[in-house]
Parts: sequence; structure tokens; C-alpha cells
Amino acid sequence: MPREFFFQVRTVAEVLEDIFRFPLLESQETELLAARGRFLAEDLKAPEDLPAFARATMDGYAVRARDTFGARESEPVILRVTGEIPMGHAPKDSLRPGEAMRIATGGMLPKGADAVVMVEYTEEIGTLVEIRRPVTPQENVIQPGEDVKAGEILFSSGTKITTGCLGVLAGLGITKIKVRRQPWVGIISTGDELVPPEELPPPGKIRDINTYTLAAGVEEAGGKVRSYGLIPDEEEALSRTIQKAFEENDVVLVSGGSSVGTRDFTLNAISRLPGAKILAHGIAVRPGKPTILAQAEGKAVFGLPGQVASALLVFYLLVRPLLLHLQGGKGKDLFLPQTKARVTRNLPSAQGREDYYRVKLFWKEDELWAEPIFRRSGLISSMAEADGLLKIPERSEGLYEGEEARVFLLP
Amino acid sequence: MPREFFFQVRTVAEVLEDIFRFPLLESQETELLAARGRFLAEDLKAPEDLPAFARATMDGYAVRARDTFGARESEPVILRVTGEIPMGHAPKDSLRPGEAMRIATGGMLPKGADAVVMVEYTEEIGTLVEIRRPVTPQENVIQPGEDVKAGEILFSSGTKITTGCLGVLAGLGITKIKVRRQPWVGIISTGDELVPPEELPPPGKIRDINTYTLAAGVEEAGGKVRSYGLIPDEEEALSRTIQKAFEENDVVLVSGGSSVGTRDFTLNAISRLPGAKILAHGIAVRPGKPTILAQAEGKAVFGLPGQVASALLVFYLLVRPLLLHLQGGKGKDLFLPQTKARVTRNLPSAQGREDYYRVKLFWKEDELWAEPIFRRSGLISSMAEADGLLKIPERSEGLYEGEEARVFLLP
Repeated sequence: MPREFFFQVRTVAEVLEDIFRFPLLESQETELLAARGRFLAEDLKAPEDLPAFARATMDGYAVRARDTFGARESEPVILRVTGEIPMGHAPKDSLRPGEAMRIATGGMLPKGADAVVMVEYTEEIGTLVEIRRPVTPQENVIQPGEDVKAGEILFSSGTKITTGCLGVLAGLGITKIKVRRQPWVGIISTGDELVPPEELPPPGKIRDINTYTLAAGVEEAGGKVRSYGLIPDEEEALSRTIQKAFEENDVVLVSGGSSVGTRDFTLNAISRLPGAKILAHGIAVRPGKPTILAQAEGKAVFGLPGQVASALLVFYLLVRPLLLHLQGGKGKDLFLPQTKARVTRNLPSAQGREDYYRVKLFWKEDELWAEPIFRRSGLISSMAEADGLLKIPERSEGLYEGEEARVFLLP
Repeated sequence: MPREFFFQVRTVAEVLEDIFRFPLLESQETELLAARGRFLAEDLKAPEDLPAFARATMDGYAVRARDTFGARESEPVILRVTGEIPMGHAPKDSLRPGEAMRIATGGMLPKGADAVVMVEYTEEIGTLVEIRRPVTPQENVIQPGEDVKAGEILFSSGTKITTGCLGVLAGLGITKIKVRRQPWVGIISTGDELVPPEELPPPGKIRDINTYTLAAGVEEAGGKVRSYGLIPDEEEALSRTIQKAFEENDVVLVSGGSSVGTRDFTLNAISRLPGAKILAHGIAVRPGKPTILAQAEGKAVFGLPGQVASALLVFYLLVRPLLLHLQGGKGKDLFLPQTKARVTRNLPSAQGREDYYRVKLFWKEDELWAEPIFRRSGLISSMAEADGLLKIPERSEGLYEGEEARVFLLP
């Protein structure tokens, strides 16, 4: 067995701790809409009160609440209608005792009014309106600053700019924000047996898949890709390319060929980077064990397994969280969304390592089920079938049919 | 009450049936990587066998299986090692009876060999190798065409181009595919009370939020946005803008102001489009009831509620599925991913309509919980807190604390 299998094998959780210590990327000002899916690089304070004025939350009549006290169906209070508040304008007149003004949802309350009676509990008769239910002060009204108070922290640094967050910011007039820049990721594939997907492989060779799948993964995680093509299993060529990719990017992904030698070449080349520190050499996860992670000058260099399913698993477990962390993401935003599902069959697992099964999810009688995709190792045709990664934790010896487990949803 | 509340109110499921009848957009050839997240516009057949040759799935020795029959730990079979198969090349020599050749995972089997003995069960001594376990024919070998057979349908039209799918295509040398083009979506906001987010609203006015949130939603769903800005509550201006947006886009979203009049203007303007057919006028869902959907010349025009949370809910329930359908998406790819979660408190609901609650999801003791976000209607500050939409079906009267419900995960 190659020596890396016995060298500094670490758990996924241990490696993630190191990953979340990598320094964040610089921040840059960005148009709000372009920041969707990225992460705030500063604490954002509300520049003003929201709303800036008292607003009606119902269609009806702006009134002085005390004028309605005692009103009932059989004995309505009668108020004088002095006009209608035009939507989008400040009312010209104040409301005096005994008066009411027509107001629509979102309308600005006139001075003197402190509540809105819903139209359902009124009847207008000529210049008068019957009020059939009392309202309490502030009823059906949003007060100035009730939604957001000027100066309060709206969103802390690291908040993901979701559609909802974007809406709050637009509502407060914040249309440019600081987010961290997108990481550049250099992708290198190695292996004498590989040809680019565009070429017809001669006997003995196959097409490179990892460059495409890793590039797709990087883009989904908000990164930008520089591809360095296919490098043969030669130590010097590999070392030169890793050095170049290291200089030009924030993260380098080297996916190894199948041969044992390449894995050693990759390790040697990574070790020669300036100030390189090997953080992991082997990870207690199946598939994906022969993974290398190094840090050099604050940049991350991964040696990923050559087998595509293993490389992708390690990508989702470690590389994707790193890319999101570098952009300032926090907490659950760093990971694929998780759900729980019942497994359709017994699944074995060895204690002491995390096992991941690719699964197909389906609903049956309002239960979510996960069907493991069992195909022989090395077959790629089943790759597209999975919509989740079912996790069997380190401490578990497996799952029985019908048991629940956590499943990461693939993007 | 405005008349639309009593006019052609339909369920979400009924409206979705109509939505999935809109004609699909044209297809276009696209680079594979750029097609990530989009949908195949044709059935894709495998152009060749995968693998094209018999490959080892383990490191070890290529052998004739029958030569190993009877091998055991105490009585190994001895074979003559005639060389090593170089990775990425066709073996020059055939394998004759009594011979073995070193092979690495992914290596091409020589003529005459039909199995691979794992290195763990061998020991090389000089020019010989001891085989300590028998293998059966085809053991540790992938046969030509075993992964994919030339001519078989790999992916049917409508398949989502996930990272896995992209990998399979790259492996087969398919680097350009046909997908449907992205829909153009015109966004119009109406309401006299609105100013653009960049402006400081004078008293009585507030900033437009829907243009930003709907644009973010459209882009997440693969669409392209044309914004038509803010239109005041004037029938002619609104009608002209809707007409223009209709001509220039595949889908038009009009999010109404709060005033009752605007909703009628919107309906009138939509009705005047060439051959317009109103498919829904009111939807049995809370929030979001005052929604209009019309079809004209194969294009969809929505009148969405002015209130931002309602507009967004209808966006996710109807508009997003439409945009994905237009691009050729199918089945569960049309909807937000779903999970199940327990609610942290009782949730009331009326029978006969779907109720949606915005929720915050969290894990507790390996259970997923959904905490409803209760804030007063009209407040936008809570918008960013939700990470899911909890659904209470039409037939239900609500949920008790601890009961499970389906939650759509917000992107």
C-alpha cells in the first residue's frame, strides 16, 4: 500500500477546523443584485428608520382610537369623513376629534390619527362613516422605526445575501455593499491515461472528467476557475504546473491519476511550495481517503483522489466549505443543505471513519426515502443519478433498512 | 372588497397544471460547463462504448482466471511475470497461459487476460508471482461497454445538467449540448407610494423592494431580467408598459401597489394583451391570494401582490416553476428542494387553502425543527431570517407543536 495511507490520516471534522482558519479574501464594493449568494464583508447598520412614518396595515379609516371606544354593531360610533389620504403622499390636513379619513394599506397616517379601523367594520353614509368596532391606539398601524431602527445592526459580517436579505437592503436604500471577492481556483488533472474530453482516447487511455466536474463545483460555490489542463505523471512537469497554479490562484486542486506514483509526485510537489505545511495526508472518509491538504502562504492546495466520485465527495466535504469560508461565509451556509431520510436497505459501515453513500431521494407516503446507488467502483454512468450524499458517522457501524440518516442535498 | 377576490380563485395545483402547458423555449447549442443547472433539450445517446477497453478496477496482476483456480494461502499458484502494463497505453504483448502482468487501477488488460488479482493476495519473488487466492473471470475488471453502451439513451430531454451529469458527458467526449435558452423576464413595479431604492423617499412614500427581490429570484431560476422601473397608479401608463414588456420578454411580472385601484388597472391592462386569457384571478393560498395569471401568445403575465413576502411566496410557488418549465425542466427539478421538519409551536390554518409560514430551520438532537417567524404583516426586517417555507396543505386545519410538515428550502 502507498505510504500516505498511514501518514497523518485525520478526520473530516479535524481538517475542517484547519480549513476555517485560512485567511479570508479581500472585500470589494458590489452592486446589490450582483451580490446574491455572496457574503457581507462588514456589519451593516440601518441608515434610517423603517418605516419613516406611521403607516396603515389595512384598508379602512384613519381615526383617533379613543373616538371609537364603545362602538358596537348595534350602536356604531359616527365620525365625519374629511377626505381620503392619497397613496404615496403626506396627508395635507390633520385629523381632529370626531373625524375619520379614508386610508389604504401602506398609506401615511395624518397627524392626530393613531389607529385604523378596517373597512369591514364601517359603513360610509354621505359625508359620515359608521364605526362598528372599537380600535385600540396603534391598531392596524406600523409605527416609525418599528420595522428597523436607524443605527441598529441589520446584518452582521458573514451574512449570506439571500433574496430576503437583498429585499431588506433595497428597502433601506442600500444598493451597494461590501462582499469578499470570489476565490480563483486552479485545477490540474494528472495521469498518463487521460486525454481531454474533446479528444478520442486511443486504446489504454480515457477522457479526463475531473477538470469538468471540479470546475462545475467551483462555480457553484462562487469560485472562478483557471484550468491548467492535463499533466502527465512526471514529477518535474507536475511540480512546475502546481507552482504556477499556486502563484496565480487562491486555491489549487490537483486531482491525481490512478497510478500510485502520481500521488507521491503530487505530495512532493506540494511539499516544495514556499512554506508549505501538510495539514492532512489521508482523510478518514470513504470514499476519498487518499486526499492531501496543504497550506502555503495562506493558500490551500488539495491533492484529490483521481477517481471522480471520490474527488467529488472530498470536494463537497472540504473544498466547497473552504471556498465559501474564503468568501466570508459562516455556519450552515458553508455546507450543503441537509435533510433526514430513511434508507431503503441495510448499509454497512466501518467504525472510525465517515462513510458516504450516493443516494437517490424520493417521497413515499409523506416520508422521504434514500435509495443507495450501488454500482461498481469506476463506473461513471451512475454519477448523474445521485441527488444526495448519505452520511454514516464515524461512531456508527451502519444502518438498518428504514433507519433515518442525514443526507446532504447535492446542488 | 375588490372584486377579484371572488373571481376565478383557483388552487396552486390547478394553476400549476396550466403553467406546465406553456410552450417551451427554443433550444441552443451550449458549451458543457456553461450548461450547468440548465436542462437538456434533446435525448442524448452515447456515441461510444464506455470504457472502450477492459480496465482493471484494482492494483494487482492481470491474469487468466483459470490459471488461479485452486490457489490458496498455503498452496499459492505461481505465475511468471512478463512485464508491467504502462498506464495509458495498450499492452504490447498478449498474456499467455501461466503468465501475469503488473497492472494498476485503470490499466488496460492485455489480450488473453480476463481478471485481475489484487496486489494484497500476491507476492512477487524474482520473475515470479505467488497468487494466494483464485479469481473468477471478469473479477476486478470493467468490460468494454459495461459502463455505457454505444447508442443507448444516456439522458432524456429535460434532464438537469448537474455536476454528475456533466461528468458523464465529459467522460463520453460530449462537450457541447443542446439546452433551451434562458427566459427573459420583464419586471414592473406599480404604486404611487414607491420610489426606487436609490432615492430617499419623501413623506408618504417608501422604497420599491419587489424589483430587486423578484430580479434576484428570476436570476436564481436561470432567467434574465429586464426591469421597467416604477409605474405610477395610472391605467394608461401601466397598460403601455405592460404592453412593451410583453413584446420584449417571455414572461412579465407586474407587482401591484397596495392600492385597490392598481389591481384593477393591472387586470384591465393584462386583459387587453393580444389574445389574452386570464387563467387565474385569485389563488387559494395565504399569503398571496390576489394573484393574476394570464396567457397571451404563449407568454405568461403575472400580476403579483404588492406586499413583498406575498409576492415572493407566489414567485416560488408559481413563477419559479414556470421559468424552469420554459427551460425544459421536469418533475422535482421544477420545485424548491423539500424536507420534513417538526414545528416548534401550534400553527393554525384554514381548510380549503394552502397556508405557508416562513420558518427558520435548526437541528436539535438530530431532529430538524422549523421555527415559524411571526412578525406583523408589512414588516420587512424578518424577510432575511427565513430559510424555509412550511406548507400546510389545503385539507389540513393546522399543525400541533412537534408535528411534522414539509418545508421548501429557500435558495
